[in-house]
Amino acid sequence: MRMYDVIKKKRDGGILSEEEISFFVSGYTKGEIPNYQASAMCMAIYLKGMTTDETVALTYAIRDSGDKLDFSSINGIRADKHSTGGVGDKTSLVVAPIVASLGLKVAKMSGRGLGHTGGTIDKLESIPGFRTDLTEKEFTECVNNVGVAIVGQNKNLAPADKKLYALRDVTATVDSIPLIVSSIMGKKLTADDDIIVLDVKTGSGAFAKTEEDATFLAKSMVDIGKRAGKKTVALITDMDSPLGRNIGNALEVEEAIEALKGGGEEDFTMLCKELAVNMLILAEKGTRNECLEFVDNAIKSGIALRKFEEMVSAQGGDLSRLNENKDKYFTKELKAHKSGYVVCENASSYGTASLILGAGRNTLDEKIDYRAGIVLKKKTGDYVNKGDTIAVFYSMSMKKIESAKKVFEEATRIDENKPKMRNLILKRIE
Amino acid sequence: MRMYDVIKKKRDGGILSEEEISFFVSGYTKGEIPNYQASAMCMAIYLKGMTTDETVALTYAIRDSGDKLDFSSINGIRADKHSTGGVGDKTSLVVAPIVASLGLKVAKMSGRGLGHTGGTIDKLESIPGFRTDLTEKEFTECVNNVGVAIVGQNKNLAPADKKLYALRDVTATVDSIPLIVSSIMGKKLTADDDIIVLDVKTGSGAFAKTEEDATFLAKSMVDIGKRAGKKTVALITDMDSPLGRNIGNALEVEEAIEALKGGGEEDFTMLCKELAVNMLILAEKGTRNECLEFVDNAIKSGIALRKFEEMVSAQGGDLSRLNENKDKYFTKELKAHKSGYVVCENASSYGTASLILGAGRNTLDEKIDYRAGIVLKKKTGDYVNKGDTIAVFYSMSMKKIESAKKVFEEATRIDENKPKMRNLILKRIE
Repeated sequence: MRMYDVIKKKRDGGILSEEEISFFVSGYTKGEIPNYQASAMCMAIYLKGMTTDETVALTYAIRDSGDKLDFSSINGIRADKHSTGGVGDKTSLVVAPIVASLGLKVAKMSGRGLGHTGGTIDKLESIPGFRTDLTEKEFTECVNNVGVAIVGQNKNLAPADKKLYALRDVTATVDSIPLIVSSIMGKKLTADDDIIVLDVKTGSGAFAKTEEDATFLAKSMVDIGKRAGKKTVALITDMDSPLGRNIGNALEVEEAIEALKGGGEEDFTMLCKELAVNMLILAEKGTRNECLEFVDNAIKSGIALRKFEEMVSAQGGDLSRLNENKDKYFTKELKAHKSGYVVCENASSYGTASLILGAGRNTLDEKIDYRAGIVLKKKTGDYVNKGDTIAVFYSMSMKKIESAKKVFEEATRIDENKPKMRNLILKRIE
Repeated sequence: MRMYDVIKKKRDGGILSEEEISFFVSGYTKGEIPNYQASAMCMAIYLKGMTTDETVALTYAIRDSGDKLDFSSINGIRADKHSTGGVGDKTSLVVAPIVASLGLKVAKMSGRGLGHTGGTIDKLESIPGFRTDLTEKEFTECVNNVGVAIVGQNKNLAPADKKLYALRDVTATVDSIPLIVSSIMGKKLTADDDIIVLDVKTGSGAFAKTEEDATFLAKSMVDIGKRAGKKTVALITDMDSPLGRNIGNALEVEEAIEALKGGGEEDFTMLCKELAVNMLILAEKGTRNECLEFVDNAIKSGIALRKFEEMVSAQGGDLSRLNENKDKYFTKELKAHKSGYVVCENASSYGTASLILGAGRNTLDEKIDYRAGIVLKKKTGDYVNKGDTIAVFYSMSMKKIESAKKVFEEATRIDENKPKMRNLILKRIE
């Protein structure tokens, strides 16, 4: 087989065989197929698409390109959730402790974030002492004893995805459904979970700008999860404005704790509960109403919060030190220049503002400033009087705040009329 | 400007500006833009196409990527012809001496061939002693004194094209109209010719499989030539079967000499004449009929042949040694297994057979076997009786002959009915 012929076939709109796809992925991972052929291939896939069968084959080839996780020593039902990424998304920090407090096992392996804010791992590392580099034994023990552990990738999981993603990132071939689906599911399937609940974002802050795109993406992922023998559902959720009120790493941990205490923002809490409920339904813990009651009780009774605290302390973190150095930070408030309804016109720009403040990274070797970020005092649909605070910016540098504020302001409008808003949870795909 | 954004724009079907195209070409030539971005770009161009303005900008960017040829010391009207490439195409060896014998100046710089047979340079090098590495001064002197010289590229002409072509060759992005047009015309325009006559091939042995594709390609090239201030016309010519009867380097020189003597195959001679006539018309040497008469006389009187011999001897070649070592070669005849009309079903396969015999090269550092090749005793439309010889194969290796014969046989049919045939010269584009 020659890579040339495989590229040519896809270029001409052909359907690739399993063998051709695995030849491409394994050859590229091993360095036998050069970057320039892989990027031509990605562009051909981008422009010509892939059938479901091709996407499945690509997913499996990515999954099989490196190590796999052995969860055989974990007792109980192993469940995970995955979000396609949005601004201010800290649901994992709330959902994982809730379902763990209700008996599911969450053995979560997360990547570091690239872009607006850190990933789940970076958020947790904003807690002083928190170790995301547990050994495999420590990880399994923590999941068995506490019910939940969240660590970084220490094995060579889906190396094809790392290489392909880095290449797609510089060749304008990121936002292609088959490439996204196979990237997410290829990584996800290296873990030996029984249950996967997907949170597929749509809107100005997400890859899938339209609900239609998100639905297509969700259906593909659910289909592939099921074919791989996992119980899988997906929620399509709004990302026209950021999730919750805090954007940034330590700021998001604070908001997650608020939600676990029952005091979180209504919309954000509702999404966390809905994700947890879906995991419990798939685990056959009861009807939808029963599962919702379990989740409500887990929050009210404090067992979900305690599960979070247990996990943090089992992984070496010290929550009492989360606010360390907070007073060293510059803060600046953005005030409303007139009265009216706030409208976030582009959630991605809020992400960019947070990146500028230091809460995210552009390249994987950049350091994150854990305390930097934005707190939204008013969100889309809220009424402000002239002079009211819309947002507060946190950073070590006043200059960064000024740039971030500018980006934020450009993406924020104050309107006379209350904007039309859609529900946070739009659809369930099973 | 970022290459990422330029790729993205083309990927989404946008029209690139001159600045964006020149940023891509000059950045890639300098090595500032990596192969993997250039290949994604080529695939996007392949699949999304380019407007005429974009193609012109790409052509000029390629032309301007390296040195240019200074023909200011050449006296007279400088004319060149260029073929898009086909099997058995030795027209340059006939056309250049004809028009030089009639007063035009042909300062031809040719590349080496990749694929079925060598390029014009390789064919000439099959003449013992022939030097294609003249200095610039020798080259100009030869053109001024003899009227014609044909040399290899010794300057850094259109380096962008070399780099891009090598990349396209391994990423399945060769056969794209804007990429082909800009490659051919970008190189061609580094020379300071007044007149360009293009021979655009169509059929099973050419890039442009259909007359429609060839017409589009020809129109684009003529358009670009004219925009660049050159008198340009194109002939669309048939390449469903090889040109002439000989395929191979020394074999093609022999056939060219036959044609210059007036004894060449009718079709092949007609094409050579037609190309020469078009060069003379553009040089305003007379009406079409007058020019045709000049050409006929140049052959009949022997001045064209003498011009060829003059050029060979000015460049150090010794025609009396062309047949050296001929007797060391194995030959094998392919006989008709039944009676009927011969049909070449795929001219490219005849090219492949010739490559297998040693007449062509797969990579630029491979050596060509100058005497290897094929002589066609019967061509498409010719009637054979069972046992008649269809073709003769020449090679240093009997094993190569066996493989080549097999490829040749698979592409050759003997039919009861006389096949429908089209004219060799299909159209003229001006």
